[in-house]
Order: sequence, then structure tokens, then C-alpha cells
Amino acid sequence: MSLTGLRQQVLEANLELVRRGLVLFTFGNVSGISRSEGLVAIKPSGVAYEGMTAVNMVITDLEGRVVEGELRPSSDLPTHLELYNRFPTIGGVAHTHSEFATAWAQAQLAIPCFGTTHADYFHGSVPVTACLAPDEIASNYERNTGIAICRLFDHLNPDDVPAALVAGHGPFCWGSSATGAAHIALILEAVARMAYYTVGISAHAAPISRELHSKHFLRKHGTNAYYGQVSRK
Amino acid sequence: MSLTGLRQQVLEANLELVRRGLVLFTFGNVSGISRSEGLVAIKPSGVAYEGMTAVNMVITDLEGRVVEGELRPSSDLPTHLELYNRFPTIGGVAHTHSEFATAWAQAQLAIPCFGTTHADYFHGSVPVTACLAPDEIASNYERNTGIAICRLFDHLNPDDVPAALVAGHGPFCWGSSATGAAHIALILEAVARMAYYTVGISAHAAPISRELHSKHFLRKHGTNAYYGQVSRK
Amino acid sequence: MSLTGLRQQVLEANLELVRRGLVLFTFGNVSGISRSEGLVAIKPSGVAYEGMTAVNMVITDLEGRVVEGELRPSSDLPTHLELYNRFPTIGGVAHTHSEFATAWAQAQLAIPCFGTTHADYFHGSVPVTACLAPDEIASNYERNTGIAICRLFDHLNPDDVPAALVAGHGPFCWGSSATGAAHIALILEAVARMAYYTVGISAHAAPISRELHSKHFLRKHGTNAYYGQVSRK
Amino acid sequence: MSLTGLRQQVLEANLELVRRGLVLFTFGNVSGISRSEGLVAIKPSGVAYEGMTAVNMVITDLEGRVVEGELRPSSDLPTHLELYNRFPTIGGVAHTHSEFATAWAQAQLAIPCFGTTHADYFHGSVPVTACLAPDEIASNYERNTGIAICRLFDHLNPDDVPAALVAGHGPFCWGSSATGAAHIALILEAVARMAYYTVGISAHAAPISRELHSKHFLRKHGTNAYYGQVSRK
Repeated sequence: MSLTGLRQQVLEANLELVRRGLVLFTFGNVSGISRSEGLVAIKPSGVAYEGMTAVNMVITDLEGRVVEGELRPSSDLPTHLELYNRFPTIGGVAHTHSEFATAWAQAQLAIPCFGTTHADYFHGSVPVTACLAPDEIASNYERNTGIAICRLFDHLNPDDVPAALVAGHGPFCWGSSATGAAHIALILEAVARMAYYTVGISAHAAPISRELHSKHFLRKHGTNAYYGQVSRK
Repeated sequence: MSLTGLRQQVLEANLELVRRGLVLFTFGNVSGISRSEGLVAIKPSGVAYEGMTAVNMVITDLEGRVVEGELRPSSDLPTHLELYNRFPTIGGVAHTHSEFATAWAQAQLAIPCFGTTHADYFHGSVPVTACLAPDEIASNYERNTGIAICRLFDHLNPDDVPAALVAGHGPFCWGSSATGAAHIALILEAVARMAYYTVGISAHAAPISRELHSKHFLRKHGTNAYYGQVSRK
Repeated sequence: MSLTGLRQQVLEANLELVRRGLVLFTFGNVSGISRSEGLVAIKPSGVAYEGMTAVNMVITDLEGRVVEGELRPSSDLPTHLELYNRFPTIGGVAHTHSEFATAWAQAQLAIPCFGTTHADYFHGSVPVTACLAPDEIASNYERNTGIAICRLFDHLNPDDVPAALVAGHGPFCWGSSATGAAHIALILEAVARMAYYTVGISAHAAPISRELHSKHFLRKHGTNAYYGQVSRK
Repeated sequence: MSLTGLRQQVLEANLELVRRGLVLFTFGNVSGISRSEGLVAIKPSGVAYEGMTAVNMVITDLEGRVVEGELRPSSDLPTHLELYNRFPTIGGVAHTHSEFATAWAQAQLAIPCFGTTHADYFHGSVPVTACLAPDEIASNYERNTGIAICRLFDHLNPDDVPAALVAGHGPFCWGSSATGAAHIALILEAVARMAYYTVGISAHAAPISRELHSKHFLRKHGTNAYYGQVSRK
């Protein structure tokens, strides 16, 4: 994909989150990467969504140096870069302060898999990071946020669980593109909301069985998927 | 009703759930049956609602063989078929992941009848299935989901309680037509939401009396109904 | 006010509840009374709000006999009539199944006055009826619902607390006109929602002091009111 | 800023709260001050937002005497004036009955800082006043409300925590202008909502660390801020 196409897709993914009610004011940021060129396009920092155009997207390299664009990139850029560097299969990252996913992050609890909606998208609970230590906050804070996320995936495939909660902050989501990352952000919010209602109905609600969880995830993903119209074999 | 009419009604019932906010992305599916022809029309699997037309509805027989249509039917088709085979009076089935009904399903609890809104539509609590066993998940999963629902109605008339919750999954609803099934899905979500709020106010909330429950159900249904404009005698 | 004007006002009050999201499908009903003629206008039973016109409003006398109109009146008419007969100062009644007020009714708990929003409109908690006994349900159910409400006002002025919750059912509200009754229904729902959130934050939330409660109610009502533009003296 | 400009800005800030769903009917009021002229513009009392124009804004001096305008000022004016008199850096005040901030006020609990969304705007928890004593309610009630708020800031900078909850009533927010005050009212509601969800997920949710709290506040505010496009040095 050309840089022009990447900028356009990143813009659209950012605006999709606004249209769907996931972001308030200038909150949130989505980026996308061109792996072949080693360049990332990301939303500028603190700019209103109204009137934002593809040209406003900032292009940086994987060390965060601005390559193209007049504006400063989102202050969360180093978190995105850490994820791109550590997760070689992903093509986009979305960060929001969406209400229910953020509430789970604020409660510092992973989102258990209470049902098949969750299982359709995440092959496991959505994990939450440890709280950052004072020295991780004092310098390189945003990069250390990314490192804290990556630590959760030492023994977990980021393609199987394409999101994590940063304790006391909010969700980061990813996908094969900026579009895919924004889609996961929307699904995660719906899943987080239903999990919130579930624990409100029963404090003792239990996750679904491992068998049901895998059945649903593999119905939609992998070589034997049979959901939808296109064979994935 | 002609197959053309059935397809159109099934399309409309699916779109009604989108308009009323009960489905996100491609979630959910509604079907309708022509009893005289032994044919079912159902939403295709994993297709966007935007731009969907009546021609996209898939026609199958009661064993699930596609008779007409270019697309694959909803992966939940075998659940619908099980309900049609076991409940001879129903003409439509609606399945959603609507938030509050799904939360009760995820909490694995029946929805108690806390008030007359519930009693107007369901002559009893809305039951929840047992969790499926590993072997019920391993093969014929969707059909076994239908069997788990039907087990709840061994001693209960499906016309009196036109919905059930599948544990860890979500609601299935039915009615005399696809339109009627979608209507029940909307009512069930409102009832599930108010039941959620009720237990939030009082963990000890009690169901209404059997007398009040029957009074309201029979005010709207059966030979002595007196709600609305048309005598049902 | 002429019967034509009354019908129009009752129609508008019913539609206002739809516009503000308080009613789903055919739920809810608002009526108004012409005290000089002893006639009541009320929404017809089970008719869709879309396309409803003033002519569809049913005119009855205070014994519930239809005087004008082609349709059957709301099945809750006898509850409205009981309130008109017992509360001589009121000119309109509104009944809804609005979500939060209904949840309190389903929890069978009065809504405590947790704040000044409540105190601005209700000089006391919003009371809840006792559950109706089997014989009160078996015959004259709707009238007995009205009697159960009126019992709550044996020692309470219905102008000071213009609403009550029917246990296991939902709210009835009133005012000087159909318009006023619908307005109270909207306020009650907002008050019920905030009271729900309040008990969610703190199970030990306490009502505001009697002094603050009276201060706010009397700032808006009575001879020394000083809120708004028009002196009420 | 001219009085004409001030009136227009105060009108716009009031309407912004309506557009964003923070006010119902005539609830809420925003004011702005011209420090050079010692004059305040505020919404009139109990007037519908529909059709409200800049000319309807009431101009008063800092003792509350009407200087320009045909209508009576908001009954909460003395609270606003107390804040202007005690907080010399602020240029606007916004008062709402927004649902979640009001619920915390009704629960008589400060809003803890559970996450970075809160920390981005408030350098501390959002405090709640003590309940007013009977004699504080009996006379000069609205001014005493302002005094109760100011007492919370004896050892706290109102620029660091630009809002407070009045126990049993609702939030008051402020900023460098009417626009800024309304913006804080919107942020506070989002923060209060997520804090509500957080305690619903975990009754033992803990505030974020002091280090993370300061990191986020200072990322957006003060001499070393690096969020957004404009250097604040």
C-alpha cells in the first residue's frame, strides 16, 4: 500500500471510532504501518477530529522520527512503535478510552470470557498489565507502556488475543491493518460492556468452558473456519 | 405466503433488529418458515447488513440443504431447524447478541418475572439452558444448541414462553412469523434490561405473584384477552 | 378547554413520551380531563403511535363509558379514573413502563430523595404501593390498582408528590394537565435513573436533609417560589 | 472581550451542554466573567433552551445586581459569584445535573482518580462538599453553597482541580472562560461515568499511583507539557 493509501486508511479508522461513539473530543489514536517501507502513519496529537484530513496524519519511522507531516504525532506513538517492533504480524494499532474497556482497565482486572461474543474474537481473556513502577513512569513512559503490554504476550500469540488493557489507563487493540485494529476496538467495547453487565447480575459468573471458547474462536479463525462466505483454507 | 414474500419478510425482520440497535456488525440472524412447502429462509452468514437484499436470503429445506440462494446460510441454521422441527406452531426464529439478554445468558441465570412488562409477553421466567458438554460442542454443535433449548420445553409450551437463553451465548426467540420473532427479541431485551436494573437496586427482588403474572399474560393472550382493539375470541 | 383541544393535548402528551424515549411499541398511556364536562380523553388500547391522530383519542365519562371515539380506550383507563375521582386538583395522568422508574417499582422500593433534582419536583420520596392481593387482581384489577395508589395518599398531598410506583408494574404520574403529567413522567425517569446510579456507588447512600428537601421544593413551588421568570404569588 | 462577545460565548457554552446531552429541560447554567469590567453574564432562570438568544443572557455585577437584561438571572447566581470572588484566575463557571457526576454528589463521595482520563484533567480526586447545615440552608442558601465549595480549596489550587461536587446536589465546574467551564463539565461527566463502572466491576478498585497521576496531568498542563500541537512554555 502506498503512503497515500496508508494515510487515508489511518484517517478513516480514526473517524470510524468517532462515528461509533468510542472517542470524546481528541481522545484516542489509530495508526497503521507499511512493513515494506518501515513507516508508520498516526493521528496527530490533540487535534480535533472535525476537519481532519489524510494530510494531517503524521508519518514516522520505527524509531519515532517524523518523516512527513506538519504536526506532532500522538503522544502515545512510542507505545504503538513498541507493539509494531515486537508483534511482527500486526499492521495497525488502535488506542481508545472507550468507557467499558477503560473501566476494566481502571479496575485492573482482565476481562474474563463470559460468552461466545468474546470467544469469537479473543482466544483467551483480555489481559491487563501490571501497574507501571515509578521509574517506568519517570522516563520513557509511553515506550514503557508498550513494554508492559508486550510482557503479557511472552507466552501468548498476539494474533489470538488482539488487545490488552493498560492498568489505570485503557485498551490498546491491534489487527492486520488500521481498519482491523479499529474493528477490534469496537468489538472489545461491546464485549467489555456485556462482561460488566454479567458481573452485575452475578458476582460469581464463571467463564465459558475451554471447549466452547475454542469452538467459537476456531469457527471464525484458522484453517477450519466455517463462519462467513469465504473459505479461509 | 410465497417464497418471495417469505424472503422479503425475513429480510425486513433482520433489518428491524439493526434499526432498533440490537445487532452490531454481522451479529444476529432471523429466519422464517413456509410450513406448507417445508422451506426456511434465513440470513446469509457473516454478510454486512448494509446493502443486503431479499435475494441474499438463503432458502433451505428442514435438513439444512440449500435449495435457493448464492450464499452460505447463517452458521446457526441447525439451531433454527431444531426449533422448527420441535415446535410445530412457530413460524419464525430470531437470534441476537443483544446486550442485556446476553448478559443474563452469560451469567447463566433465567430472567425472573419481576414485573408486568415481562408478564405481558412471557408466561413464566425466561429459562436458560445447561452448559453444553464437551461432546455436544465437538460435533453438531449448532444442532445440539437447539436440542438444549428444546429440553427446557419438555413441560412448557413454547407459545407461552417464546424465548430461551443459551448459557454463555445469548437469546433465541420465536413467534408466529419472522416479524413476530424479531418483535419478541426486542421485547426480551427491554425486559432483560429492566430485570438487570431491578437486581441492581435490590439483590433480594422477588418475582411478582402467580396471580398478577397470569392476569397480565391472559389480558393480552388467549380467549379472554381484552388488551388492544381486536377481539381474539 | 374544548374537547377538541383536550384530544389534541392528550395526543401531544402521548407523543412527547415517544419522542423522549420513554415508551416502546404501544406501551404507556396519557389522559386528560375536562372537569367542567366530566369527560376524560385517553389513548386507545394497543394502537401504534405512528400515524395516531387526535381523533383516535377516546372520550369517556368518569365511569369509563365511551362517549366519543371508534376505538377501545387504554385498558388502564379505570386506574386513571380512580385517580381523577380521588385527586380533585389533577388534570392529567401519565403511565409508562420507563426503564428506571419501572425498575424501582419492580424492586418494590420507594425512590428516596437523594438530591435536589428530586426535591425540585417531589416533596417526599416517590412511594410504592403494596402488592395487590389475589382477589384485587381477580376482578376490577385496573380499578384496584388505582385504589392501591390512592391509599398511599391518605396522609399525603398528591400535588406535593405527583407520582407513585405500582409494585411489580411501573409508575403513574399526574399534573394539572396531560402535558404536566407527561412532564412529571420524564422528570421521574431522570430522578429514578440517578437514584439507581447513587445506590450503585454507595449502598449506604442517605437521603438529603429535610431542610434541603423543603428548600428546593419551595424554591420552585408555592407562594414564596423564586425559581424561573414568573412570580407565583 | 466585549459584553456582546461575553453574552454570545455564555450562550454558546450553555447550548453546548444541551447538544452533548448534559441537561434536561431548563436544568443547568453556565456563566462567564469580564474581569476588567467586573461584570458576569449568566443564563436566565427557568427559561427553555430552545429559542434562547444572546440577548437573553443576564448581566450582573459581582454583588448580583442586574445591570442589563430583561429576565431574572439563574437562581444559582450567588454560587457562581462566590466562586468568581474567591478564585481570581477563573473566567467561567458551569453547573449541571449531569447524571453520573450528580450520582457521585448524591452518594456524597469524592470521585477517586481511577485512571489517566481523570488524571489528564484533575490533579487530585474531585472533592465533595460537606452537607449544608440547616442555618446555611435557611438563608443565603445559594451563596452558602459557593462557600462550601471554596472551603474545599483552602489548601488546593482550583486550577489543578477545576470542579467540585455539592453533596446531594450536583457538580460545579470552572475554567478560564465559559467555554472552558462547559468543557470541564463534559469531561467530568465522562470521568464520573467511568468511575461508576469501575466500582461496579470491583468494589476494591484503587486509585492510580501519585506518579502516574502527576505524569498525565503534567503531560497536558504546565511548563513541561508535551501533549497537543502548541508548546505551552
